[in-house]
Amino acid sequence: MKRTAFFISDGTGITAEALGQSLLAQFKNVQFDKITLPYIDTVEKAKKAAERINKAAEVDEVRPVIFDTIINSEVRQHLEQCNGFMIDIFGTFLEPLESELGAKSSYTVGSSHAIVAQASYSKRIDAINFALENDDGAVTKHYSEADIILVGVSRSGKTPTCIYLALQYGIKAANYPLTEDDILDQRLPKTLQPHRKKIFGLTIDPDRLIMIRNERAPQSRYASQKQCFYEIEEVELMYRRERIPFLNSTHYSIEEISTRIMVMTGIERRVA
Amino acid sequence: MKRTAFFISDGTGITAEALGQSLLAQFKNVQFDKITLPYIDTVEKAKKAAERINKAAEVDEVRPVIFDTIINSEVRQHLEQCNGFMIDIFGTFLEPLESELGAKSSYTVGSSHAIVAQASYSKRIDAINFALENDDGAVTKHYSEADIILVGVSRSGKTPTCIYLALQYGIKAANYPLTEDDILDQRLPKTLQPHRKKIFGLTIDPDRLIMIRNERAPQSRYASQKQCFYEIEEVELMYRRERIPFLNSTHYSIEEISTRIMVMTGIERRVA
Repeated sequence: MKRTAFFISDGTGITAEALGQSLLAQFKNVQFDKITLPYIDTVEKAKKAAERINKAAEVDEVRPVIFDTIINSEVRQHLEQCNGFMIDIFGTFLEPLESELGAKSSYTVGSSHAIVAQASYSKRIDAINFALENDDGAVTKHYSEADIILVGVSRSGKTPTCIYLALQYGIKAANYPLTEDDILDQRLPKTLQPHRKKIFGLTIDPDRLIMIRNERAPQSRYASQKQCFYEIEEVELMYRRERIPFLNSTHYSIEEISTRIMVMTGIERRVA
Repeated sequence: MKRTAFFISDGTGITAEALGQSLLAQFKNVQFDKITLPYIDTVEKAKKAAERINKAAEVDEVRPVIFDTIINSEVRQHLEQCNGFMIDIFGTFLEPLESELGAKSSYTVGSSHAIVAQASYSKRIDAINFALENDDGAVTKHYSEADIILVGVSRSGKTPTCIYLALQYGIKAANYPLTEDDILDQRLPKTLQPHRKKIFGLTIDPDRLIMIRNERAPQSRYASQKQCFYEIEEVELMYRRERIPFLNSTHYSIEEISTRIMVMTGIERRVA
């Protein structure tokens, strides 16, 4: 059975998508074609969206599921004419919230992101620049400015995690790759020692590491079973010996690695 | 009036946060202290969360607002004992969805992110690496691989946009800074000409550019009013002359710039 699902918003569609994806993931036996329609902020666009929904209903021979966060009631009315099962995300919760808070909703389009953005734009940009400048151990002199320094063997997930922490939370995250020399040393590299409290380790299952490295450098020593098992074993030993908190990234998404690190370390987000 | 708002989840909390933030932004006259509690996946953790909520209720002298996406009913029950106004995000929508889809929800914790993640992890990582390797015009030889190439003057928002496109959508985005030489030329730089169809321009209000550049290089020629006005004027002329689609990034968040570019260009996301 196949259904079309629409995430429709007068803004970016990020909220409708996040919630819609989570809900649909609960129905493993239904296959969904997912379509996001952002910036549906005029009656004209709403009519076109409704047409698109009706077409999908015809093709699928079953009405699509619509998750929407459209605030403007006139625009929404035109969307509602469609042959779809509508889930009105904002509408459902705004009324109970109004009565609980004893305040009226402003019904402002896309205000959430606009407000959050203005206040935090510079912090996020600064944090992204910090992550880029302090990626892969290239530069180590700014470590005193860092909120966190991720360490781990090559391809254990350090860079995407730093970037996500910067983008999402405005956290200044540097990363330092543990090389074979560092591993032979069996100690935390000298450069890192003054920053011990900010250091967090990543590890990964050797089998997964072999796979990832083979995509980069097929059949190399770097991607060999022997090398990957050796590096991971030694690095985990080092984390334990040096009492560095660490996380195995194998089964987690970038978002999960990042949020788990925040819980484990207690570092605070820099943007609301 | 001040209220505490909690975003609580058995997973990352990203969905609860995205929806909660959007809803709270509709109440401009209420001030919220926002707290995210991810990974509340045991009765023990739920009890602790409930205690924390009760404490906030005491301090604020008004019950907090709770947005939660906890699936496990036993865990959720213990949370519900708290003195808070609970908004059960998943619960509200799962039942109507079940009857519309004629299927049972699997009530699986954090499954949304896990599934999406496994399928798309490599694509996202590849795209992030691509964005880093092809940032700031350093390398131009991979442009034929790019899904999009952002151009614009220094500090117009190219890098964070490329990174967001990669992280969120798995899109391979390169960026190329338009320098004074390029501007004097009044034409699209030679390196870019073969890739004309993939090129998208960013621009920014000169006053905002002056501010941003002054943070980097105070009182420099680079940050001067004259220079910023000149660069922006010439670049926008060039976009028009060369018929390059472009966007003014001044009033938008990174997410908005990115989603608007996707709408304007029609490029498709590479991950679900």
